[in-house]
Amino acid sequence: MFSTPAATGRTSSSAWLQAMLDFEAALASAQAKAGVIPAAAAEEIGRYCRAELFDADAIAERAVSSATPVIPLVRDLTALLGTEAKPYVHRGATSQDVIDTAAMLVARDVLGLVIADVRAAADECARLAEQHRHTVMIARSLLQQALPTTFGYRCAGWLTALDEATAVLDRVRGQRLAVQLGGPAGTLASLGRDGVRVVELLATELGLAEPVVPWHTDRARIAELAGALGTAAGVLGKIALDVELHAQTEVGELAEGKAGGSSAMPHKQNPVSAVLSTAATRRVPGLVATLLSAMPQEYERAAGAWQSEWEPLTELLRLVAAAAAQTRQLLAGLRVRPEKMAANLDLTRGLMMAESATGPLMTSLGRTEAQDLVARLCRRAVQEGTTLRAELLADPQVRAVLSEAEVVAATEPADYLGAAPAFIDRALAAHTELENR
Amino acid sequence: MFSTPAATGRTSSSAWLQAMLDFEAALASAQAKAGVIPAAAAEEIGRYCRAELFDADAIAERAVSSATPVIPLVRDLTALLGTEAKPYVHRGATSQDVIDTAAMLVARDVLGLVIADVRAAADECARLAEQHRHTVMIARSLLQQALPTTFGYRCAGWLTALDEATAVLDRVRGQRLAVQLGGPAGTLASLGRDGVRVVELLATELGLAEPVVPWHTDRARIAELAGALGTAAGVLGKIALDVELHAQTEVGELAEGKAGGSSAMPHKQNPVSAVLSTAATRRVPGLVATLLSAMPQEYERAAGAWQSEWEPLTELLRLVAAAAAQTRQLLAGLRVRPEKMAANLDLTRGLMMAESATGPLMTSLGRTEAQDLVARLCRRAVQEGTTLRAELLADPQVRAVLSEAEVVAATEPADYLGAAPAFIDRALAAHTELENR
Amino acid sequence: MFSTPAATGRTSSSAWLQAMLDFEAALASAQAKAGVIPAAAAEEIGRYCRAELFDADAIAERAVSSATPVIPLVRDLTALLGTEAKPYVHRGATSQDVIDTAAMLVARDVLGLVIADVRAAADECARLAEQHRHTVMIARSLLQQALPTTFGYRCAGWLTALDEATAVLDRVRGQRLAVQLGGPAGTLASLGRDGVRVVELLATELGLAEPVVPWHTDRARIAELAGALGTAAGVLGKIALDVELHAQTEVGELAEGKAGGSSAMPHKQNPVSAVLSTAATRRVPGLVATLLSAMPQEYERAAGAWQSEWEPLTELLRLVAAAAAQTRQLLAGLRVRPEKMAANLDLTRGLMMAESATGPLMTSLGRTEAQDLVARLCRRAVQEGTTLRAELLADPQVRAVLSEAEVVAATEPADYLGAAPAFIDRALAAHTELENR
Amino acid sequence: MFSTPAATGRTSSSAWLQAMLDFEAALASAQAKAGVIPAAAAEEIGRYCRAELFDADAIAERAVSSATPVIPLVRDLTALLGTEAKPYVHRGATSQDVIDTAAMLVARDVLGLVIADVRAAADECARLAEQHRHTVMIARSLLQQALPTTFGYRCAGWLTALDEATAVLDRVRGQRLAVQLGGPAGTLASLGRDGVRVVELLATELGLAEPVVPWHTDRARIAELAGALGTAAGVLGKIALDVELHAQTEVGELAEGKAGGSSAMPHKQNPVSAVLSTAATRRVPGLVATLLSAMPQEYERAAGAWQSEWEPLTELLRLVAAAAAQTRQLLAGLRVRPEKMAANLDLTRGLMMAESATGPLMTSLGRTEAQDLVARLCRRAVQEGTTLRAELLADPQVRAVLSEAEVVAATEPADYLGAAPAFIDRALAAHTELENR
Repeated sequence: MFSTPAATGRTSSSAWLQAMLDFEAALASAQAKAGVIPAAAAEEIGRYCRAELFDADAIAERAVSSATPVIPLVRDLTALLGTEAKPYVHRGATSQDVIDTAAMLVARDVLGLVIADVRAAADECARLAEQHRHTVMIARSLLQQALPTTFGYRCAGWLTALDEATAVLDRVRGQRLAVQLGGPAGTLASLGRDGVRVVELLATELGLAEPVVPWHTDRARIAELAGALGTAAGVLGKIALDVELHAQTEVGELAEGKAGGSSAMPHKQNPVSAVLSTAATRRVPGLVATLLSAMPQEYERAAGAWQSEWEPLTELLRLVAAAAAQTRQLLAGLRVRPEKMAANLDLTRGLMMAESATGPLMTSLGRTEAQDLVARLCRRAVQEGTTLRAELLADPQVRAVLSEAEVVAATEPADYLGAAPAFIDRALAAHTELENR
Repeated sequence: MFSTPAATGRTSSSAWLQAMLDFEAALASAQAKAGVIPAAAAEEIGRYCRAELFDADAIAERAVSSATPVIPLVRDLTALLGTEAKPYVHRGATSQDVIDTAAMLVARDVLGLVIADVRAAADECARLAEQHRHTVMIARSLLQQALPTTFGYRCAGWLTALDEATAVLDRVRGQRLAVQLGGPAGTLASLGRDGVRVVELLATELGLAEPVVPWHTDRARIAELAGALGTAAGVLGKIALDVELHAQTEVGELAEGKAGGSSAMPHKQNPVSAVLSTAATRRVPGLVATLLSAMPQEYERAAGAWQSEWEPLTELLRLVAAAAAQTRQLLAGLRVRPEKMAANLDLTRGLMMAESATGPLMTSLGRTEAQDLVARLCRRAVQEGTTLRAELLADPQVRAVLSEAEVVAATEPADYLGAAPAFIDRALAAHTELENR
Repeated sequence: MFSTPAATGRTSSSAWLQAMLDFEAALASAQAKAGVIPAAAAEEIGRYCRAELFDADAIAERAVSSATPVIPLVRDLTALLGTEAKPYVHRGATSQDVIDTAAMLVARDVLGLVIADVRAAADECARLAEQHRHTVMIARSLLQQALPTTFGYRCAGWLTALDEATAVLDRVRGQRLAVQLGGPAGTLASLGRDGVRVVELLATELGLAEPVVPWHTDRARIAELAGALGTAAGVLGKIALDVELHAQTEVGELAEGKAGGSSAMPHKQNPVSAVLSTAATRRVPGLVATLLSAMPQEYERAAGAWQSEWEPLTELLRLVAAAAAQTRQLLAGLRVRPEKMAANLDLTRGLMMAESATGPLMTSLGRTEAQDLVARLCRRAVQEGTTLRAELLADPQVRAVLSEAEVVAATEPADYLGAAPAFIDRALAAHTELENR
Repeated sequence: MFSTPAATGRTSSSAWLQAMLDFEAALASAQAKAGVIPAAAAEEIGRYCRAELFDADAIAERAVSSATPVIPLVRDLTALLGTEAKPYVHRGATSQDVIDTAAMLVARDVLGLVIADVRAAADECARLAEQHRHTVMIARSLLQQALPTTFGYRCAGWLTALDEATAVLDRVRGQRLAVQLGGPAGTLASLGRDGVRVVELLATELGLAEPVVPWHTDRARIAELAGALGTAAGVLGKIALDVELHAQTEVGELAEGKAGGSSAMPHKQNPVSAVLSTAATRRVPGLVATLLSAMPQEYERAAGAWQSEWEPLTELLRLVAAAAAQTRQLLAGLRVRPEKMAANLDLTRGLMMAESATGPLMTSLGRTEAQDLVARLCRRAVQEGTTLRAELLADPQVRAVLSEAEVVAATEPADYLGAAPAFIDRALAAHTELENR
């Protein structure tokens, strides 16, 4: 319901129809090149393989009686042709050849969109990582404030995850989308000796990989595609979840550029893009499971398992495309509130610096005693409503070994960021490398 | 319940325990090499990091109160050490560092097992493909007899699918299993400037990849691992399903070497390995979905999503390992019955050769007339209880254009195999190439 | 893609749109009855709440910016009204009130369809159970022939399962589909004291249950609906699987009335309805999981989880409706081949009667010796290509204790059906009882 | 890993073993009562049906070769018996009879535990709803502050959801857990005319329902059980999620009684029970999907689908039991912080009272003008850092129609709770009614 127009368009029934027609045109062309059918016939077939000449609804209706849309499609295509070309349509192919190849073409197209959006989202993260390299914020674990980090480092984490998703998607798109051509038994028997040659030419024609053997009941390609989309969805879902949480009224560290408002509730700033991305990505695992469940396909063509793939695969592509587009837009417009991040850092009265403060005390007092001392001062800070820093400064045992400057340094969040800057650099460098590939 | 001992052993709680201890030992060793802790301490820690010194059940029990087994584990480990070494255990690490790295170690171990079994299963398929290159059998689509193929070609299909699964598993095992080390906020703050260096040394120590940044809430690695296991399970599941169907009493083309019997039903030859493999692989999609659902992990450590990964991941590894072992054994002992395959080819009175028979008639009669003629003879063969060949031989219109030898050739299943032999060669060649890599 | 027109129509976007408008009309009417808004306004609102007056696509497009279609819908509805009625549209309601109630209305409508088809399918099973009460066929376990049964008894099993599915669906439809009305915080604050009264009137108006409290983030109703559909899908899927297997060329015991043919493969009789039902039902578990995953919805309205429900729920309803329709049609036209069932009974040379034959021998020979003797004769029958009956008749040890008639009786499948007839009677009686309820 | 001891114990392999032995003992007893076997034999069998006499691991090991643990179990049981009793063990039963009935017994036991914990959790919610009936807090939608509500009302929502879950679980436990007894073909052929009578007696013996017909391949009972557990898990998961969010450092409205601490991070109060509950419930949808996927079981016994049920069902029971126990404990110890709830109400400067404030202005100014005026004052409050109340009080147009007291009333959260109190009463009344049933 909330797809972006691009995602919807490229997974629509007319996109599928055109992809099936692209198969038929390319098959005829490949067969002409292989000398199996006359060049003129292939040319004529090619001319009529345009979705706008067909009635998708009527094809879908007639698809029910044979459990495949290919039979009515080929019939309608044949009807458009002159007598000469008619016998050369769909030569040697089976329904599954058409639908599987069409699925690969639709997937290639949508993956192109997804990869572009994921890459653009990654670029936004790189920008934010650089920009907020020094924007200190609290890291949270189990939804509890933990230790200091920077918002730039968080963005570096998103960046690396998006880059990983890109690599997975790129690999599947570049290597695993293959043509399907095997005929009813996978033997291409009616093409005699020309079968393998036609497969090669068809692959070239469509720019898809050439499979070792027909993959009618080897669904690893579908599984890998689903897996890649599942991985990407999880990465996008994490970003959306973070944004939703940071945008909570009580946290207020992030807001969407175009946050949704409400006249009755003017204070609300709904993280609309994040919500839409979440709604889309939450549906992905179930669809991946459906596709994996459909993998064991019996004999040479499955009774039901194969037919169960089409809509979930389409849905999966559409949802991930929608989530990628929302994420890109969300990151491009993200409003970051460093002042709120700073304010939230103060919420625990500096207790999140306990580990940092213990460090310099350990040298003189030993590990256990230092820990106990800091723990005591933390409790005091909470009881008295002061801060850990104030308690440390006021404590004689501490001051016997640490100067005021040392106490201040040991309780300064910005000084307790460890390898965060180095990790940001690594993430940016890896991103640049990926981009240059 | 039906795991193989190897699969069970490598995913047991003691395997997990040892993997966690391996992390602690390697961390100490890496930190000693980085000069962060004394070498003697690292050595002592390493000496005590052996699972048999710990009580896994007691650790699990105490894990509940903190939602992590690492706290009691580190406590028990520390208790074993001398005073000198005690402070240097688990330095700078967080629970998730231990568990995530342990998961990677367990996964590496089990994947090794899985890959070995999948490769061995593929070798069996290569043998069968070669051996049954000329064993003609009927191809079936939607569980209906379709056109002739060979059993060797079916095995070539299994082979290619197993090789694809191997490639996916290999890639994840070789490239995506990485060390985890980030400390509570992913910043390694308590290690000061040494953080990144320790990560590098730890990765070397354990032979795992070094991640760009800590991946506490970037679960792409888990998703890719799950995806690879899901793909492999689907491939294994297809083989099991085929064997179960071929082994049906009414089909009888295959039997397991050690088919399960029954005293009350002496005619039964239960395809036990296939059933166990099916039972295991059917559970995989749900587990993959659970892991994908867990990907969106908020902030720097998730409240629940991360903790939900451990058991499903372990289960997934165990089940795929069990299925791979069963498949290897099943294929090694598979009993093939070419005589039954030949008998089944005759069940439809040669009607599955209609397409083949139409071909040579088309030249003289034209496509439509040839098709109509053959269809008529098919109906006759069914009505009269004869065969298509007999009807073709007896039909004057046919005999006007085809000799007896031509009719026989056009209705000979073994002569209508198209590219099957070529595809077998391609599958074998690709397998050899993969093996030599 | 393969939905029946009824299933598609009742889950279409215009069905949803009308359901949302039905909510708005009923809300206005209920509020008029409660004296909250003028009766004339309610009447006018009701007049314009007709889907054909709205542009579903335009609403969907504008839905993206606020993550809900209700805002543009209410805007368009308001625009149609005169100045007097305008302020009274959607009074006190929130988007989720509209969508959740609409979901319940759509579900009620589709469940009506599903239940009718499942009941009709059960009636067909009752007819077949009666009709084939004495049609002996082989029971199969692990796809191996086991012991005799009757086709009527199989149909009684389908019948009971369909009756159970009906009971579950009936219960959810009758008791768990409730109106939703709570306003933005579930408090109906803007309705002041009239809130509860309006809920009651709205429930009456729409014929839906009245919930104890608004269920914005208590998704048990959705889960129960999904669970009922999941149960029904599993029951339908079992019937389809059985039909596909019985329809195998090698088994040939069942065929669909309108089996799909193929000109190139005239012997094929594709079980098209079963395949379509299988394709639909295989997708159900993933959708149920998605809806269950969405149950934990935070606070008073979820950010993403709720929005992720709409399409999977619609899909689930559509798929189960399609499968139920296919099953009904399949059963109504099912062609049963008792002669093939009889022939298949002979395939194992009577070995499936070993248990039966052992019985009468046990009295004289003792359990172990009787079992050993029969096992030996079974092996002989296989080796010699005879039958178990022939071997029993020829064996002196057997004949010393059993007459020819006794041997024949002990090896007659039709005499070894145990409680099958009694179970058929029970299934029919339970079905009649359910129908009379 | 984080199961409660009760949940673990009742789903352990020894619990399963005992349940299988309970079946064998009850079967013998039922058959003795039916006069099928000698009473002495039944008595002796009953004496040896105690799990501690068997080696579960050894049985599991031998289970692999026949794909069922029942064969070795029956062998071991028989070995314990005297010669007289030996022939009467497991009479007429098939492996699936044992395992399915055992599953029902295990389920009944665990459901008892789950229902007790869910009921106790509901009682805690009832207590909290009563206790915090007037504790005003902000309602949140899409993680944004929305309108006022009370914490008591939230608890009433939890209460109703838990009561619904109880009803579903009760129904399945009371009505759908049935004995399984059909023998290898479901016909109970070897029991001759006594089959149905033995089924009846067995059901009485075990206190399980008597099915209409054996349900070997009708898995609706498993699906309904899974669905009930899935519904309960979702309800428990929602409570855990709410607690985690309310316990966020920045929200701070709730804390667990035994929140998990950290020495390095003394400010952390990890919501451990909620996290464990979340970790458990997140795994449920995948398991439910696995069980639903396994429903289509072919013929009279499935090859793989049935065997795939056992572990997921056990896991499902264990996880929901663990989550229910954690939830009960969490609610019993829940620390509520009304002062923090009050503080959070002030975060938006009273803007969440905009709707409330608009109400009284509408009478004089009309809807649109009133809304515009309040919107303007909201923007002013944000810009000036004042509150909506202050702006209303200071605005001449407002004061022309509303007195100070009226403005104060219209901006008082505690006065804008609508039907919340009434809904609390309804939830409590429904709970009392359920308890009294």
